Amino acid sequence: MNQPLVLTDLLHRAREFFPAQEIVEYGGATETHRYTNRDFHERVVSLAGALVRLGVRPGDRVATLAWNHHRHLELYFAVPLAGAVLHTVNLRLEPTEIAYVLGHAEDVVVFADLSLLPRLDVARAERPAMIVIATDGSGPGELTYEDLVAEGPPLENPPRIDENDLAALCYTSGTTGPPKGVGYSHRSLYLHTFAACLADGHAISERDTVLHVVPMFHANAWGIPFAALMTGAKQVLPGPHPVPAEIATIVEAEGVTYTGMVPTVAADLVRLVAREGADLSSLRALVLGGSPPDDELLRALQELGIPAFQGWGMTEISPMGTFSRPLPSVTDPAERRRSVRKQGRLLPGLRWRLVGEDGTDQPHDGAARGELLIRGPWVATQYFRDEHPESFADGWLRTGDIATIDADGYLEIVDRAKDLIKSGGEWISSVALEQALTANPAVAESAVVGVPHERWQERPYALVVLEPGRSDTPDDVLADLRDRVPRWWLPEGVLVVDELPRTSVGKIDKKVLRAKVAAGGAG
Amino acid sequence: MNQPLVLTDLLHRAREFFPAQEIVEYGGATETHRYTNRDFHERVVSLAGALVRLGVRPGDRVATLAWNHHRHLELYFAVPLAGAVLHTVNLRLEPTEIAYVLGHAEDVVVFADLSLLPRLDVARAERPAMIVIATDGSGPGELTYEDLVAEGPPLENPPRIDENDLAALCYTSGTTGPPKGVGYSHRSLYLHTFAACLADGHAISERDTVLHVVPMFHANAWGIPFAALMTGAKQVLPGPHPVPAEIATIVEAEGVTYTGMVPTVAADLVRLVAREGADLSSLRALVLGGSPPDDELLRALQELGIPAFQGWGMTEISPMGTFSRPLPSVTDPAERRRSVRKQGRLLPGLRWRLVGEDGTDQPHDGAARGELLIRGPWVATQYFRDEHPESFADGWLRTGDIATIDADGYLEIVDRAKDLIKSGGEWISSVALEQALTANPAVAESAVVGVPHERWQERPYALVVLEPGRSDTPDDVLADLRDRVPRWWLPEGVLVVDELPRTSVGKIDKKVLRAKVAAGGAG
Repeated sequence: MNQPLVLTDLLHRAREFFPAQEIVEYGGATETHRYTNRDFHERVVSLAGALVRLGVRPGDRVATLAWNHHRHLELYFAVPLAGAVLHTVNLRLEPTEIAYVLGHAEDVVVFADLSLLPRLDVARAERPAMIVIATDGSGPGELTYEDLVAEGPPLENPPRIDENDLAALCYTSGTTGPPKGVGYSHRSLYLHTFAACLADGHAISERDTVLHVVPMFHANAWGIPFAALMTGAKQVLPGPHPVPAEIATIVEAEGVTYTGMVPTVAADLVRLVAREGADLSSLRALVLGGSPPDDELLRALQELGIPAFQGWGMTEISPMGTFSRPLPSVTDPAERRRSVRKQGRLLPGLRWRLVGEDGTDQPHDGAARGELLIRGPWVATQYFRDEHPESFADGWLRTGDIATIDADGYLEIVDRAKDLIKSGGEWISSVALEQALTANPAVAESAVVGVPHERWQERPYALVVLEPGRSDTPDDVLADLRDRVPRWWLPEGVLVVDELPRTSVGKIDKKVLRAKVAAGGAG
Repeated sequence: MNQPLVLTDLLHRAREFFPAQEIVEYGGATETHRYTNRDFHERVVSLAGALVRLGVRPGDRVATLAWNHHRHLELYFAVPLAGAVLHTVNLRLEPTEIAYVLGHAEDVVVFADLSLLPRLDVARAERPAMIVIATDGSGPGELTYEDLVAEGPPLENPPRIDENDLAALCYTSGTTGPPKGVGYSHRSLYLHTFAACLADGHAISERDTVLHVVPMFHANAWGIPFAALMTGAKQVLPGPHPVPAEIATIVEAEGVTYTGMVPTVAADLVRLVAREGADLSSLRALVLGGSPPDDELLRALQELGIPAFQGWGMTEISPMGTFSRPLPSVTDPAERRRSVRKQGRLLPGLRWRLVGEDGTDQPHDGAARGELLIRGPWVATQYFRDEHPESFADGWLRTGDIATIDADGYLEIVDRAKDLIKSGGEWISSVALEQALTANPAVAESAVVGVPHERWQERPYALVVLEPGRSDTPDDVLADLRDRVPRWWLPEGVLVVDELPRTSVGKIDKKVLRAKVAAGGAG
């Protein structure tokens, strides 16, 4: 009964049980490729053979720098089948950051979309031995992807894989330093795949048509490609840069039943439907992740009859950690939205703790706050190359999130440990202060950072983007805030800016903001 | 990410996330006990503490001889929590067989229902050191179950469990010799639990109310108690000897959504509804297992609007091997029934082969036959104490079933390599029955075959050759047999013949015998 849990079993399962199931790729709103799991399997095995002939050995890292297309999906399975480690690189990174992660991972081969090849310039200069293969069209004189697949023969004798061997690798966008690598074993991704198909979670099934909106360079694309292949779900890939109008067209054309996306994209989609009236009624589940959805978005989705859920996770958790589905007893629409705005319940298999500043476990009463610690069979217990051991404690991942857990077991993340501002020995929540700022009708977006302060150690400082047509002054913004927050929360200053800087994954980049404030904004 | 997969995590999950969820016990059609997961957890931890104080050490076997009641459910978790191995004994075995399995497993403690204590007489005489505890009422002078729970304190420091440690043990009814033990590791049951909750399978979820009709002395009660606790489903236990009228009453009273049972019981239930009109509309899934359902039963269930599925498995597969759900594209009612009459598709995680007599893999075309071989993380690769190595080949379990697999991946078992008769979901060993027949001094030779039976699916039928000079009648033969086998093993008929037909290699040709019986012997 100690059969190893290896990903390649999922690939073979799709070939055996769902050979005629389709994989469809779009480019924009136009279908560009449609084939079956049978063809997919054949191409994956051919590509794995080509990787071995290229010199890729078990344990080697093979990178991708690519949008969501069928060749990227093939790489998801061909690289682990060859015993190698799939390293998905975030295409929004700067060329120097890309060079950093490729160097850190020591990738021997990188597959990149033609349009993204220029981003590899720095890395190629640094690592001339690295083999670069264009996934589409012809590369700059090198082998192309289709050459490799066509060259055959398929991999005859795949290397024997231990379940604890790495199958994939993904770097977190570093907010406090260089990116950190998270390695995923075959076992961890296999168990994560089962978790994605549980009836109480994402519930991926053979009856689904899954649209991969979540970038495949994000942690395992939430694990959905593995779940789809295991269950025989139909998979649809939107191609590069999907915009809401394209997503709506694809949902209609393919009868998409399940997709996941960040709330920003979902909000755009909802506005598009309101404006132009697309039919999204085939969706049985729209899972929101990356950041929590607001009530307005959830209400709009309710009005459209689209069941929405929140999934919370981290690169370090493969990434699925929780799933927010209202309790069976909760039927009131507003109460259901409140449930979904929380991060939800821990997936089976995982365990968590809420640890207060004094190191003690906090009660799960919806009020007590603590840092969230997580452990489980798909939670990292170390970073690649054993860096940053301080992020782990006795097998627990320190998430760096400050959270509450209510009596029903629903997680609510109330702050990042590092985004808390400690003023005169008291915590100020930058998240709560940002919410109070955007409650002002004049304010479109806001960000709060901590700035050093002689008397109070640290004080909040606010940056706001005004709604179009508004010309409120910093004093106006402060005046509005007076009624909304405790007096001692009032920021030391307000800076009106045109836009807020964001990281490659779309999060507000507080590192840049702090620098901006330090450089004079605060003066 | 190599967190061990241990069952006790499921117990703690229920306590943390679903403390108020109910567990209800019935005795007949009367509710006898209702409590919550919170109380359940507390009692389980107390009982585990008591086991340790009784002297139970990690790895020791602790047996149960019990019906489906809340204390049996508590033992399912308390025994593994104490690091010991739960050995569920089939209460339909004869006292000598019970003594055999208790001796073979070397159980140190046995928990038995008061009504079943007499069945332990042989075992107690053989193993006087074995501690016997009555699960209900007061035992014969010994500790009772409630004494143990009340005695406290709870287990403070549960032993550290490795995922490959055994958590449970179950014996198959021996077909060609004594019963064989199948050990289940924590890891195997944990993965089996995930499989039970997949959206495409049994799909056990928090929204379910599960009725445990499947005897808990059968292989892990199909794994449903673990799945229910992991997901927070409400659990309902029917108590001893549930009859269809009681099942119908419980389904109505508790709003049962999921249950599993053998087709015989389901057919009785359907007849009861036709006669007396119970409301079973709360059922979202009725899973039939143990033997395949016939078309009449499936049509009756369709007419009642009860979705029915077939689950196939074996004690050696924990027991879930396949699940038969019609393809999403199949909507015609008759075609759906045809799908459900097949054993269905292999669960994710498992792999299978169809091996012909010449040792080659047979095509999956719905026509080619072969012996079914299975492997996977919850498939046995050996029997307890390493007996019968011939049942395994290179990590594959030889199921002994002759089957076809069609192009959609649906298994259909067409014959059994070994001579077993399945009567109302329970195995009868034709070999053991033949031995009992020839123990009669009047009988020279005997053969037993299974004949189709309306109520029990299959029943044994005996053919005997008398010793020279004897003229015993079939009734004489049956009368002699009464003292030698359980009542329910008694053949439907006995045919006295001059000789038994044999194959070219001298084996009794049961195919010819079945034809003989069908042609009139059974009339």
